[in-house]
Amino acid sequence: MTSSSPDLSHHLSGEARERLPNPMKVIWRRVNSSGRIDVANMANGDPHHSLYPFKQLMFEVPSVAEEPDPVPAWRTGNCPTQFFHSYKDEPCALSLRNAFQYTHGAGLPECQKTLTDLTQFFYAPPDHAITLTLGNSDGITKLFRLLGERGDHFLTDEFSFPGMTNAPLSYGIKWVGVKMDAGGMIPEEMEKILQNWNEASGRRPHVLYIIPVGQNPTGTTLSLERRQKIYAIAQKWDLIIIEDDPYYFIQFDQPPVETPSDDQGNYSKRFAKSLIPTILSMDTDGRVLRIDSFSKIIAPGMRLGWITSNRMFHDKLVTYTDSGPQHPHAFGQAFVTEMLSEKGWQMDGFCRWLQSLRLDYQRRRDFLLEVFRREVEPTGYASVNVPEGGMFVWIEVYFERHPRYRSEPPVAGSSTVAPRTNVEVLLLELLEKFIELDVVIMPSVLFAIEEHPRWIDDGARHVPIRDRTRFYRATFAGTEETIEKGMTRLGRALREFFDGPPLTSRL
Amino acid sequence: MTSSSPDLSHHLSGEARERLPNPMKVIWRRVNSSGRIDVANMANGDPHHSLYPFKQLMFEVPSVAEEPDPVPAWRTGNCPTQFFHSYKDEPCALSLRNAFQYTHGAGLPECQKTLTDLTQFFYAPPDHAITLTLGNSDGITKLFRLLGERGDHFLTDEFSFPGMTNAPLSYGIKWVGVKMDAGGMIPEEMEKILQNWNEASGRRPHVLYIIPVGQNPTGTTLSLERRQKIYAIAQKWDLIIIEDDPYYFIQFDQPPVETPSDDQGNYSKRFAKSLIPTILSMDTDGRVLRIDSFSKIIAPGMRLGWITSNRMFHDKLVTYTDSGPQHPHAFGQAFVTEMLSEKGWQMDGFCRWLQSLRLDYQRRRDFLLEVFRREVEPTGYASVNVPEGGMFVWIEVYFERHPRYRSEPPVAGSSTVAPRTNVEVLLLELLEKFIELDVVIMPSVLFAIEEHPRWIDDGARHVPIRDRTRFYRATFAGTEETIEKGMTRLGRALREFFDGPPLTSRL
Repeated sequence: MTSSSPDLSHHLSGEARERLPNPMKVIWRRVNSSGRIDVANMANGDPHHSLYPFKQLMFEVPSVAEEPDPVPAWRTGNCPTQFFHSYKDEPCALSLRNAFQYTHGAGLPECQKTLTDLTQFFYAPPDHAITLTLGNSDGITKLFRLLGERGDHFLTDEFSFPGMTNAPLSYGIKWVGVKMDAGGMIPEEMEKILQNWNEASGRRPHVLYIIPVGQNPTGTTLSLERRQKIYAIAQKWDLIIIEDDPYYFIQFDQPPVETPSDDQGNYSKRFAKSLIPTILSMDTDGRVLRIDSFSKIIAPGMRLGWITSNRMFHDKLVTYTDSGPQHPHAFGQAFVTEMLSEKGWQMDGFCRWLQSLRLDYQRRRDFLLEVFRREVEPTGYASVNVPEGGMFVWIEVYFERHPRYRSEPPVAGSSTVAPRTNVEVLLLELLEKFIELDVVIMPSVLFAIEEHPRWIDDGARHVPIRDRTRFYRATFAGTEETIEKGMTRLGRALREFFDGPPLTSRL
Repeated sequence: MTSSSPDLSHHLSGEARERLPNPMKVIWRRVNSSGRIDVANMANGDPHHSLYPFKQLMFEVPSVAEEPDPVPAWRTGNCPTQFFHSYKDEPCALSLRNAFQYTHGAGLPECQKTLTDLTQFFYAPPDHAITLTLGNSDGITKLFRLLGERGDHFLTDEFSFPGMTNAPLSYGIKWVGVKMDAGGMIPEEMEKILQNWNEASGRRPHVLYIIPVGQNPTGTTLSLERRQKIYAIAQKWDLIIIEDDPYYFIQFDQPPVETPSDDQGNYSKRFAKSLIPTILSMDTDGRVLRIDSFSKIIAPGMRLGWITSNRMFHDKLVTYTDSGPQHPHAFGQAFVTEMLSEKGWQMDGFCRWLQSLRLDYQRRRDFLLEVFRREVEPTGYASVNVPEGGMFVWIEVYFERHPRYRSEPPVAGSSTVAPRTNVEVLLLELLEKFIELDVVIMPSVLFAIEEHPRWIDDGARHVPIRDRTRFYRATFAGTEETIEKGMTRLGRALREFFDGPPLTSRL
C-alpha cells in the first residue's frame, strides 16, 4: 500500500463500521500522551505477573541444524532434540511476564515483530500491518464479518471448503462460484461474472476468497500469470482479495535448496526464492488480506496465524478481536518468538524444517500417484491430477461409463441449461461403495458452489455444477500404509461399482 | 436441566438457527455408525502427528503441596517448583498426538472431561454440558451472537464492563440497565422493567447478563437470596441468564480452610463449601449459561475457559466454534489436563492455590482499604465499598460538596425526570486532576448503562444515570507500592479539587 492507495473503507460491513473500541483506551491515550513516568495505575483488573504460576515453559523440538533432512529423521525418532525456553523472570525472547498478561488484539509486540519480519522476508509486501489470529479459520471468518453485509455476494472457486464457505451463509452472504480448470480459478471466468452481473439481484461481488496454493479441495495452484490477472481484475472491479494460503510453504517439484560452502547463512534466502510470489506481494492498492497459519507447517493445535493487510483493515480487525476472543494465547506466541529468535531455530533453521517438510509431503504425493497408477488407473474409470502443493489430490471419475448413467435433454425452450445428468446420484452411490470397502474420501458435492445462479445473465449455456460433481478429494497427509490400503480399495470399489461385484461373490 | 425442562430454542438468534454444520460430519457419522474398524481415512487434511515438531512440553510451576500458603512464597521466589510434562510419544494425561490435532469445537475429550468433573465438583448443576472457550471474552461474545437478534434488548447491571457491553451494539442489540445497590443488582428493579415493558418498542428483554461475584466495575457480590430471586424472575419472564463469573474463586472473608489430621484428601471439598452457590447450580430449566475462565486464577494469557449450558445451547456453540476460531489451542488444554491429573496438582492442590490466591487478594483489598481510610476518608469527599470478591473497589465521590456543583430543576410539566446535575462534568474534571497527580482510576461514566430509556413506561420519577455517575473504579490487583502511592495521590487530588490548590502553590 502506498500513499496514493485508494480509500477502501466502503468495503467494510455496517457492523465493522459501527463497532466501538473499548472506551478505556481513550483514557490511556490521554495518560500516555502526557509523558508521565511515575503513574500509579489502579485502573485495570490485570493480575500481577508475580501471581502467574509459571516459572518456565519448555518446548522440546527437533534440532534442525544437525540433520540435513530433519523431517524423516524426526518421524523415525532418529533426530536429536533441542529445547526452547520461555521464562518469567530470566532473559528470553518473549518474557512470560508479558506473554501471560492481557495485551493488544494484534498480539504481543515481540511476536508481532517476529511475524512482521517473517512476512517481510517471504512476501515483501508494500506497506502492510500484521494482526495475529487463532489460525486461518479464525482469520477467514473474521474477514467475512469485516466485509460482508446481508445480501452481499462473494466470489470463490466453484469447489471450495464448506467449513469456511458455510460460515457467512447464516448471516446472509451468498457465494458465486468461479469456474476452475487444472490450473485453478480461471481469471477470464471471474471477469465474465463481474461484467454480466445483474445489478437487480444485488450489489456486484466485492470480495474474492481464494486458496492459491494446493487449493482445498482441488489441489490446484495458481500460476504467477493467473495471480497477476486476478489482481488486475480486482483493481478494475474494485474487489478485495482474501488470500487464504495455509499450504504456501508446501510447494512441490522445486530444485533442491543447497548452500555452497562459501555461502553460509543464506539458506533461508534460497528457500524463499523457490516459492511462487504471493498475491499480497503485488498489492500496491492494499486490497489483499492475506491469511497465514502454523497449522499445516507446525501443527493444527497451535491455533496461531496472522493476517497481513493495509492499516485501515488492521485497525478494524484489532477492534473486532478486542471485543471477541481477544489476543491469542501466551503459549503459541512464546513458542513462535523463541523459535525464530537467536536461541531458537532462527530463520535458517525454520526454512530447513519447511524444506524437509515439503519434501516429505512430496514423497507422499508421489507415493499416492504411484499406487493410483498401479491400482486405480487400469480400471479406466478414474484419473487424478498432480498437485503442485498442499495435501490433496482431486480424483475424477468417468461416470458416463457407468451402465446407469443418464443424461436428459434440457427443458424445451431453455437454451441456457445443458442436459441434466444423474452424476450426483452416482457420486453418492459410489461413496457408499467406498465406505463398504473401508476407504473414506470426500465427494465433490460437499464442496460445490453454484457457478451460474439466476443473478448472472450472460446468455451462455451452462452445465449446472451438480452435473459436474465428478470428483472426490483424497489426501496424502496420512501414512504410506493408509495410502496403499486406500488406493487399492478405491480401485476395487470402482471395479465393483462399474462392472458389478466380482465373480466369486456372484456365485 | 431435567427431562421436563422447557424448550428454549426460541431464544436462539436467526443466525444461530441458520448456521450449518460442516457437511463432512454427516459422512463421518455414517462411517462411524457402520462400526468399521479398518477404515483407510484419506478424507481429511490433518497433518500426521509424526510431523508435529514437539516431543515434549514442560511447565515449571509452584509446588503447592509443600507450602501451606503457596502464593506469598511464590511471589517472593521462595516456593519450590514442580514440573508438568506433556509428551507426544510417552504416557501422560493428554497426549500431544491428540492435543495438536484438529478436534471437536467443544475441546479435546480429555480436557473436556477434566473440566466437566471440575464443574460437577464445584457447581453440581443439573444435566449440563461443557464447551471450551478462549476465555470469558470469547465466551460472552459468542453467547451474545447465539441469542441476540437485531432490535433485541438485553438486561444487565446499570454499571457494566464496556469491553463486553459494547460488542453487540454494532449488530443492533440494545442494553437496559438494572438498578444496583451495595448488594449488586436489585431483583425487584429488574422485575419492574419486565413488568412495565412497552412492547411497542420491541420484544421484551429475554437475556440477562450478570457478573455475580466482584462485579466489574462495582465490586459487588450477589447474595444467595438475590440469586434465588433473580432465577425465579428468569423463570417467570422466560429469561436466559448469562452468568459471567471470572472472580468466583476469589471470594473474601471466608473462614480458613483447614484439614484436620484425620481428614486427609478432603481439602478441596472444604474449600468448595466456602463458596457461594452459583446460579447455575439452581438451574433446573437449563436457562443459565455460565462462563468460567482461567484468566484471573492462572493468568490472562491462558486464553482458556469454558461455558456450562444445556445440551441444545452446547450443540449450537460447537457449530459456531467450528465455523469460527475452532477448538482452543493444544497448550492450554495440555496444561489444564496435566495440572488436574494424578501427576499434577490434582483438585486438592488446585484448591490450595485458589485458597492462597484469594487470601492474597484479600490482603491487598485490606491494604487498599487501610490506606483509603488514612489518606482519603479524612477529606470528607469520598467513601469506598468493601468488596466480598474480585479485584475492584467502587469509590463514591460527594460531588454535591463541590463549590461548582449545580442542580437544575426538571423541565416544567415533566414529572418523570429528576433534577439535572453537572456530576458527569465534575467527574471528568476530577479525572484530569487524578492524571495530573499521577494516579489513574476509571470514571464510572464509561460503565454507565441507561436504566430508564424511553421504552419503559412505569410512570416513576427517575434520576438519569448520567446524574448518578458519582463513582470511580479502582483495582487492588497491583502491588502494595502502587496502592500506597495511588490512594495517597487520590486523597491529595480530592483536596485540591474540592478546596483549591494547596496554599504553597497559591503563593
